[in-house]
Amino acid sequence: MKLATLDDGTRDGALRVVRRDLSRIADATDIAPTLQAALDAWDRVEPQLRARAAALEAGEVASEPYDATRLRSPLPRAYEWVDGSAYISHVVLVRRARNAEPPATLKTDPLVYQGGSGVLLDPTADIELPDAGWGLDFEAEVVAILGDTPRGVAADAAAPHIKLLTLVNDVTLRNLIPPELAKGFGFFTSKPASAFGPVAVTPDELGDAWQDGRLHLPMRVHHNGTLVGQAEAGPEMWFSFHDLLAHITRTRGFTAGTLLGSGTVANEDASKGYSCIAEKRMREIIADGAPTTPFLQDGDTVRIEMLDAHGASIFGAITQRVRSVA
Amino acid sequence: MKLATLDDGTRDGALRVVRRDLSRIADATDIAPTLQAALDAWDRVEPQLRARAAALEAGEVASEPYDATRLRSPLPRAYEWVDGSAYISHVVLVRRARNAEPPATLKTDPLVYQGGSGVLLDPTADIELPDAGWGLDFEAEVVAILGDTPRGVAADAAAPHIKLLTLVNDVTLRNLIPPELAKGFGFFTSKPASAFGPVAVTPDELGDAWQDGRLHLPMRVHHNGTLVGQAEAGPEMWFSFHDLLAHITRTRGFTAGTLLGSGTVANEDASKGYSCIAEKRMREIIADGAPTTPFLQDGDTVRIEMLDAHGASIFGAITQRVRSVA
Repeated sequence: MKLATLDDGTRDGALRVVRRDLSRIADATDIAPTLQAALDAWDRVEPQLRARAAALEAGEVASEPYDATRLRSPLPRAYEWVDGSAYISHVVLVRRARNAEPPATLKTDPLVYQGGSGVLLDPTADIELPDAGWGLDFEAEVVAILGDTPRGVAADAAAPHIKLLTLVNDVTLRNLIPPELAKGFGFFTSKPASAFGPVAVTPDELGDAWQDGRLHLPMRVHHNGTLVGQAEAGPEMWFSFHDLLAHITRTRGFTAGTLLGSGTVANEDASKGYSCIAEKRMREIIADGAPTTPFLQDGDTVRIEMLDAHGASIFGAITQRVRSVA
Repeated sequence: MKLATLDDGTRDGALRVVRRDLSRIADATDIAPTLQAALDAWDRVEPQLRARAAALEAGEVASEPYDATRLRSPLPRAYEWVDGSAYISHVVLVRRARNAEPPATLKTDPLVYQGGSGVLLDPTADIELPDAGWGLDFEAEVVAILGDTPRGVAADAAAPHIKLLTLVNDVTLRNLIPPELAKGFGFFTSKPASAFGPVAVTPDELGDAWQDGRLHLPMRVHHNGTLVGQAEAGPEMWFSFHDLLAHITRTRGFTAGTLLGSGTVANEDASKGYSCIAEKRMREIIADGAPTTPFLQDGDTVRIEMLDAHGASIFGAITQRVRSVA
């Protein structure tokens, strides 16, 4: 089943089911007005939503064309955005870029940070850039959307809590990170609003590509129209979503609608390209002594997408343009 | 105007207005079903809620007795919980306790962290403690509840964005902090769910005690029935709520219902007591070489409250008991 949130002018949008081939959408607000409402009552509404999705596939329900520019992030605002950093090669490269060591517990204790979730960007929204000196970067990631999740879930019991999967562009202001992390309290101003979606899908939609809490498909990233990244999201995810979920539930529980990110998808093999500019710049520094790829500039575009084995888009594409603002 | 959220069995509770003297509450769900809904439409509903509150004061509306044990946190789940650390003496003491230096920018750049907000504790809920070795501590703080707040608000334009004020017990697991902060991504498992409220009040309820984004009243903290803290919350708040709001809006905006905390209220004068056990322990170490006050144990109680100039409770009391759990 595939779900999306239509922009109907309200804060939280209107729930839609989406055809598997992303060609059409159908109203689901009679089942649940918003995706948050659906997640709040998931056990009850999931069968009804699946029936609506089946009717849409069969052409048995009123529908309208899919248009990503009318969609919001699946949750236009969420109660929590917890972002992991589960790809070891990303952690090593970006820390090297800011002359920081990877943590001693790199491979034993998952890295996560608590992100802001009250204002999330639409998947085709401009990324506003007030100051080019902030070092604007994209980060392409996989995201799990959780149902109600209590404290103390073991990794091998995590799967049922993952209701949906989607993508995120975890927007990052690289040049604000070093002074912020030096204060010891983690990211804050260095992580402005991120864009999710446009489509959230149940894990069963992924077939064999979803295995043991990892999504085994390439993360396709275009920067200014050029394919710059196609890192495999599965094999090098050191901590799976199940591991991340076990970690975050160590001391507290989470409400339905919590967003849990994988961290920037990254491969050791540089020929797979990059899912954030910081990695590209670090590789340039290692090879040539200095970076040559600038961070995002006014007018730059980013496209983040995942294709299935037949080349069809699974989640739709996050397509954003950078826009300088005062 | 004073507002609260009644536990009606739903996720987000039911909106109530509260008599100024905390004696009675009246239904306001016909105006807005929840506090979040009220904040989402604040400009429209605030006059209606004020009229209901006036009717309650005049005994002109049906009401029932105030009972804190039936109240939730004003927002049982919130879209963001952003917690500052604006009392310099707290920062200096707790960092000394873990052999860490205060940040170089201690007095020029506010410290804030992004907390979890999807599951918040009721103001009279037990604090569950799975492991006494985690070093459970309370932190008594003042909290501003924001309306919609755009990016780039200057401190001198911050006041209108603060719609309500309340209290928080920012529950902290002291012994999980050092290894977590060593990873560089800030707090996560060391900050389990916190308890807010029980009553949220508009700034005008505070009269002269609310000045320039600071609340000039003592924070009264009882531990196991003994008054252990009465730190003045106003004069030593180095960064005001207006300063904190300007800081957090540097790179992004916030939705209505965002919770913004002051940090643990603390005074340099040790005779004012303490608003968290970590400070008490650090003073013991300085005086005697070792701490003698243990962190919270099974059965311990904490009471956090603020009284007005006439000795009346403004926000009601956060009253919690620690309960060991498996």
